[in-house]
Amino acid sequence: MTSTGHDVNSDALVQSPDSKHPANLICSLCRQFYGHGWVTGTGGGVSIRHDKHIFLAPSGVEKELMQPEHIFVMDYASREYIRRPLALKSSACTPLFLAAFTLRGAGCCIHTHSQWAVLVTLLCEAGMQGRKGVFEISQIEQIKGISRGGTGSTEIAEGGRKLGNLSYFDTMRIPIIENTAHEEDLKESLEKAMLEWPETCAVLVRRHGVYVWGKDVTQAKTQAESLDYLFQLAVEMHKLGLKWT
Amino acid sequence: MTSTGHDVNSDALVQSPDSKHPANLICSLCRQFYGHGWVTGTGGGVSIRHDKHIFLAPSGVEKELMQPEHIFVMDYASREYIRRPLALKSSACTPLFLAAFTLRGAGCCIHTHSQWAVLVTLLCEAGMQGRKGVFEISQIEQIKGISRGGTGSTEIAEGGRKLGNLSYFDTMRIPIIENTAHEEDLKESLEKAMLEWPETCAVLVRRHGVYVWGKDVTQAKTQAESLDYLFQLAVEMHKLGLKWT
Amino acid sequence: MTSTGHDVNSDALVQSPDSKHPANLICSLCRQFYGHGWVTGTGGGVSIRHDKHIFLAPSGVEKELMQPEHIFVMDYASREYIRRPLALKSSACTPLFLAAFTLRGAGCCIHTHSQWAVLVTLLCEAGMQGRKGVFEISQIEQIKGISRGGTGSTEIAEGGRKLGNLSYFDTMRIPIIENTAHEEDLKESLEKAMLEWPETCAVLVRRHGVYVWGKDVTQAKTQAESLDYLFQLAVEMHKLGLKWT
Amino acid sequence: MTSTGHDVNSDALVQSPDSKHPANLICSLCRQFYGHGWVTGTGGGVSIRHDKHIFLAPSGVEKELMQPEHIFVMDYASREYIRRPLALKSSACTPLFLAAFTLRGAGCCIHTHSQWAVLVTLLCEAGMQGRKGVFEISQIEQIKGISRGGTGSTEIAEGGRKLGNLSYFDTMRIPIIENTAHEEDLKESLEKAMLEWPETCAVLVRRHGVYVWGKDVTQAKTQAESLDYLFQLAVEMHKLGLKWT
Repeated sequence: MTSTGHDVNSDALVQSPDSKHPANLICSLCRQFYGHGWVTGTGGGVSIRHDKHIFLAPSGVEKELMQPEHIFVMDYASREYIRRPLALKSSACTPLFLAAFTLRGAGCCIHTHSQWAVLVTLLCEAGMQGRKGVFEISQIEQIKGISRGGTGSTEIAEGGRKLGNLSYFDTMRIPIIENTAHEEDLKESLEKAMLEWPETCAVLVRRHGVYVWGKDVTQAKTQAESLDYLFQLAVEMHKLGLKWT
Repeated sequence: MTSTGHDVNSDALVQSPDSKHPANLICSLCRQFYGHGWVTGTGGGVSIRHDKHIFLAPSGVEKELMQPEHIFVMDYASREYIRRPLALKSSACTPLFLAAFTLRGAGCCIHTHSQWAVLVTLLCEAGMQGRKGVFEISQIEQIKGISRGGTGSTEIAEGGRKLGNLSYFDTMRIPIIENTAHEEDLKESLEKAMLEWPETCAVLVRRHGVYVWGKDVTQAKTQAESLDYLFQLAVEMHKLGLKWT
Repeated sequence: MTSTGHDVNSDALVQSPDSKHPANLICSLCRQFYGHGWVTGTGGGVSIRHDKHIFLAPSGVEKELMQPEHIFVMDYASREYIRRPLALKSSACTPLFLAAFTLRGAGCCIHTHSQWAVLVTLLCEAGMQGRKGVFEISQIEQIKGISRGGTGSTEIAEGGRKLGNLSYFDTMRIPIIENTAHEEDLKESLEKAMLEWPETCAVLVRRHGVYVWGKDVTQAKTQAESLDYLFQLAVEMHKLGLKWT
Repeated sequence: MTSTGHDVNSDALVQSPDSKHPANLICSLCRQFYGHGWVTGTGGGVSIRHDKHIFLAPSGVEKELMQPEHIFVMDYASREYIRRPLALKSSACTPLFLAAFTLRGAGCCIHTHSQWAVLVTLLCEAGMQGRKGVFEISQIEQIKGISRGGTGSTEIAEGGRKLGNLSYFDTMRIPIIENTAHEEDLKESLEKAMLEWPETCAVLVRRHGVYVWGKDVTQAKTQAESLDYLFQLAVEMHKLGLKWT
């Protein structure tokens, strides 16, 4: 693991007085997500792509206690760790975060175990609302917080497809993939969903949670919030006997 | 946009050590509203009228991270921006806030995407409780936190109409208007609702949220809280099979 | 009002570096209760009896912003205000707090507009659970956090009645009184309930909230918490089709 | 009580500038658990085993106000208190915490009154889901946050039984024991459950709450969080008509 020749514990990569440094941002996001109930019991994760590096929250660390020294750093081109805290395990979400960076040009990817995300996958699975493989909702103002493709970047436009954020009259569709025994085994189906659903900003994982991305931290985070709002609203709507579309 | 001759970035308008300065108040309110789940994913907004100026939270900024330098300032008389942060977009809610200032003499207007507000509009729309175009609730103590007209000002009295706050035995009625594709397009129907419902302190927007105002920040904020309490209580009452009136 | 000869604005009565001073305690309790959703929109209140004085949160002040200079002080013996912030209105709850001090020997009384309290009164009113005039629950561990009479003081024992806290196998009963148009008009029925229900630590007010007391701040506050836990649990039990007793 | 010859108030045992000192950890955990609604009204508790000592939160202290000087310290070998704050009562949970240390080799044990824990015991009792004496759930990702036996230690392996954390396809089973009038009387049935359910990390107490343990503070706390997540999810699933297994 140190055969790469890189300094595996270079603190300079994660120590900065700048609150916008990716290592600091991951820590503040983790604290905030803990408060939302998204990363209970060390679940979930966050990754930021910055310049040539990928910054990753580790596995098994309490999210509200995350510190910059816990952060892993990977070289994006070579996929090799250039900082790897020896006492910690890298996140099993890593290949999934990389999928968002590679296939969508994302700059940040967030994984939550939000109960609202899990509950909408269960309602879809049971055929109670939506469809088995997709969560659908329409005509709710908060849908406008969601960008096509997740990053809303012009680069991904093709064939005259519309860009930018969804409008109020659009139906938001988030694909749902099956969960697997090991998180890293989600890679193939997550990548498949990204390719088959070019307009989605997220992939739900049945009985597990959601992956959401954006071109940068702000877009990924605000989209994660808007989606979670929509998941929670959908569950409450179902309790009240209201249809999602 | 700079053709007005005004200094579009005058920091002096928003920089003050006084925590009661409108620019500071907007920031602290936004943080607080984020904690309530009212302004998830950059949704919602706040505006304060102070002397000859209108202070406005911008579009697209994470509400819990709002800083005074993000605040837009408009001259109330001319409706021209006298401070306009170049990197930011003005809020699409601006014409709606202006309606509250102009038609109601409000000093502060708050717009939230509270899920409870959205859910009561859905229940009314479905004919499950209330009426299609109006949310009604009566005999709940918290109704006493709501003033007639939203500002309770004597100026709006006419024809011997009662002033001051609602009493426990009054029925509170909040009109519900249809949502539109673009927020600014709500202006006409919001103004119409304000004129047709002179006693309301707020207008609900179906599948979207609520606009609430008051003569000053304290009244607008405490009315927004009392209303949200009533919306949440109404949803819980409906789940338990209890009638609102 | 100043005819009493007392200094109506004596700051010394409410200014202290001691965090346990009643004026400081009222402020910290109000902030905490705001976080619980108990005092939304300036609703609810708190009062502490200390030595010969009664300290009272004022009417109409945002609870999370309460400062010692906002606190009213009354002389317990004469019932005259010895500190009365001129810009503020005294709390309409004052006669109700006094009832707890006088009839129960309480040292602190808390009034909340908790939605859980309101919802259990609605369920009892509708005959869905409990009885019309009383909330009843049994065999829940948290009942053990409730003292007989509210203060658990030996002074109130008579006729061999048991003292101390309720046990797991006791049924907790909290009387429910009707709401009135004006808060001060609750005085008579609240006092009547206190006399008729010598074991209760609280009185529920239909469609309004709850008054809870204790021999000191700690007991009043922890009983308010235990009761609110039981009210919330009762509402959730009802949603799940479970009986309270 | 002081006949043991030990210094019953040795402050050195609980005063440390190190935030990881057990006395400091108990205080920060108690504040955090208060925020989760796990230790309302002084309910619940925490204990840490460290070297030859057991550190215990006392009875009757508001958890969010807990200070190191409130902490009891017991000598693990002799079971005698070596620090006992004179004004406080020791926790009635003490024999139950000791069971986790003795029978499971735990380093930390947490007791909560979480409403979600109480509600799942009520649903099981009523035969609505699960089985009368056991809470069961399967195929939810968060189950992977739970270790076999609670500590995942190799010491408890026998007969080729699997070790480590549960996998996604395992069914998590948490035994439910009956509540008793006095907390200390739970000792026998809790120990029996620990012996009969070697894979459990926790024991639910009907109409009361849950005991959760781990080899250290981090494992006990993250397992308490994962369990509470699963209890809450289970209650929400039941409301939506979804089965737990």
